[in-house]
Amino acid sequence: MQKTPQSVGIVSAQRAQFDTPLTCQSGFVLSRYELVYETYGMLNADKSNAILICHALSGHHHVAGYYADAPKNIGWWDNMIGPGKPLDTDKFFIIGLNNLGGCHGSTGPSSINPATNKPYGASFPVITVEDWVESQARLADKLGIKQFAAICGGSLGGMQAMQWSLSYPERVRHVLTIASAPRLTAENIAFNDVARNAILTDPDFYGGDFYEHGVVPRRGLRLARMLGHITYLSDDAMADKFGRSLRSGKLSYNYDIEFEIESYLRYQGDKFAAYFDANTYLLMTKALDYFDPAREYNDNLDRAFAGAKADFLVISFSTDWRFSPERSRAIVSALLHNRRNVSYAEIASDHGHDSFLMQHDHYHRVMQAYLDNIASEFTS
Amino acid sequence: MQKTPQSVGIVSAQRAQFDTPLTCQSGFVLSRYELVYETYGMLNADKSNAILICHALSGHHHVAGYYADAPKNIGWWDNMIGPGKPLDTDKFFIIGLNNLGGCHGSTGPSSINPATNKPYGASFPVITVEDWVESQARLADKLGIKQFAAICGGSLGGMQAMQWSLSYPERVRHVLTIASAPRLTAENIAFNDVARNAILTDPDFYGGDFYEHGVVPRRGLRLARMLGHITYLSDDAMADKFGRSLRSGKLSYNYDIEFEIESYLRYQGDKFAAYFDANTYLLMTKALDYFDPAREYNDNLDRAFAGAKADFLVISFSTDWRFSPERSRAIVSALLHNRRNVSYAEIASDHGHDSFLMQHDHYHRVMQAYLDNIASEFTS
Repeated sequence: MQKTPQSVGIVSAQRAQFDTPLTCQSGFVLSRYELVYETYGMLNADKSNAILICHALSGHHHVAGYYADAPKNIGWWDNMIGPGKPLDTDKFFIIGLNNLGGCHGSTGPSSINPATNKPYGASFPVITVEDWVESQARLADKLGIKQFAAICGGSLGGMQAMQWSLSYPERVRHVLTIASAPRLTAENIAFNDVARNAILTDPDFYGGDFYEHGVVPRRGLRLARMLGHITYLSDDAMADKFGRSLRSGKLSYNYDIEFEIESYLRYQGDKFAAYFDANTYLLMTKALDYFDPAREYNDNLDRAFAGAKADFLVISFSTDWRFSPERSRAIVSALLHNRRNVSYAEIASDHGHDSFLMQHDHYHRVMQAYLDNIASEFTS
Repeated sequence: MQKTPQSVGIVSAQRAQFDTPLTCQSGFVLSRYELVYETYGMLNADKSNAILICHALSGHHHVAGYYADAPKNIGWWDNMIGPGKPLDTDKFFIIGLNNLGGCHGSTGPSSINPATNKPYGASFPVITVEDWVESQARLADKLGIKQFAAICGGSLGGMQAMQWSLSYPERVRHVLTIASAPRLTAENIAFNDVARNAILTDPDFYGGDFYEHGVVPRRGLRLARMLGHITYLSDDAMADKFGRSLRSGKLSYNYDIEFEIESYLRYQGDKFAAYFDANTYLLMTKALDYFDPAREYNDNLDRAFAGAKADFLVISFSTDWRFSPERSRAIVSALLHNRRNVSYAEIASDHGHDSFLMQHDHYHRVMQAYLDNIASEFTS
């Protein structure tokens, strides 16, 4: 019998401290750092039911449920996680974390550098997907998890899930990579570069050390987010939702907000700029740009995946032009070349790249079926 | 016998002054203004061989040939205009102008307002495609041209060509609209809005009156142009031209230029910001947003074109995602509904929206064939 999907209910964040220095790909050594995380469900006796959720550009550790003191602050993937939901917390022990370099509690550019007692700012290292996997593996060690049942993520999160299968092939049985890509295209990098330049050239950025000036590069962050939103949505979704509707019903012949789409974008930009850290934004886009497992194999993705041992679920969305289905099919092709077990679903959705975050029957049923199958590995 | 295509050679700009007030669509009355223009070829005795070239966002009057004192300053559509070229100056009298509101010599926001003896700046009106057609018609009057053989433009220029057939159906025999659209989509407007916001929020913009502060909102203009360039190119063209090539051959792990595509975009942005007027950029994007002949017909484009009398050539490019072939087909459909003569060509090109400016055999042959046919109307 199908269970009624429920919320995981009240959750709270935890904090883990790591005192073993982490050598980043850049060569920078982070002497110590903290990661903030949440867990949902119970770890079973043999610790075989853990699933790690990796977040995308603006995500964090609060993936499901809500806080006792903030019941409206619901996790960003709450539609996917909970009793009776695809990531079923009656079966799985699910971990969400804020990535190293983030701005939601884990050590990042806005954190105090213990060596200087000032925010890291510009001195915080560029972090790569490989670095994240390393830091996540240490968190798994701390939780006693030797092997994940699955690692799962959308977009940049999907890249981390893939990287797990390359960095730690023995430590992950299933990789779920959603609306992702084996590497960014020149166009993807170009959009990131415009967003970065909006921040880097904001006079309030101060080379990354804006904290000590008591300002925030809001203009730049706002532009970056506005641009991001265009690429997360599909042309059709924008046309359906906003079309050419005018906010006041008539043309104003000035440079104020005129069309509804402008109102939406500026609102999203302002909201984001009010809380997100500019240095974290830069760092996240750079991690996206850098991810490219085929680079060291002379651009041969087949060879890059040669060491992977996991089974894979790859999902793409028809109107996602930022990480198009074609990009997901490249992943599938490379995995099949290596005789991996791969399930692939191309979901018809109007909502572009954002689809991976949204409630969508077909998408959720594909996830549910795949995850039920994983659960049967240890509950049967 | 096919002539060898040649340059029109040395050209020089001319200037026309208009002292009859122009009432803009916004209600603003421009008491007087000047237009800068160039002409190529000879106007025939009955003045029936004139072709007007309308420019796009960053275009101007210098469409073909070069200047005696600047032989490398070649017109922006020189590959299309000259003896033996599709717009054959042995047959046609061709006019290029800088649009009202421009920054290449015609009256615009950076011009001195005779009423104040200061640059117009923020007080310069928003100009619409309809306003441009009105100002262009007055230029035609001054040159004694009652009816154009053709009016021709790409992108925003194509919108002006279309508007001519609606504002002055008796004054244009052929409309050539290339890589254009009957109106912008929400996504198009969204990109324009991000570009505008980059300029509007640049501290050096001073609400449009930066001239008197001796500064230019370079950061904003640069971002606007970088973003524009992404939308002018196709994903494939970027991949082919830049791919993921690194400028220095290795990753730098900082926020300097890393990939070749970043180097290209920043160069384009810097170059543009060094000469283009920020207020003109705003004005041009707003004219794009506003163009929507179907608006007053309850969004019915068929009805909007009911009064058109011209024949049409409509051209689109396969990889143009800014003004996709689908948008051109909407124009064709509305024209056919009104029993207009329409030729339509969808050109396979890798170069996205920029294709309309480039040398391309199939495209140029389509233009040549259509224009030769127009020429036969008055040379036979």
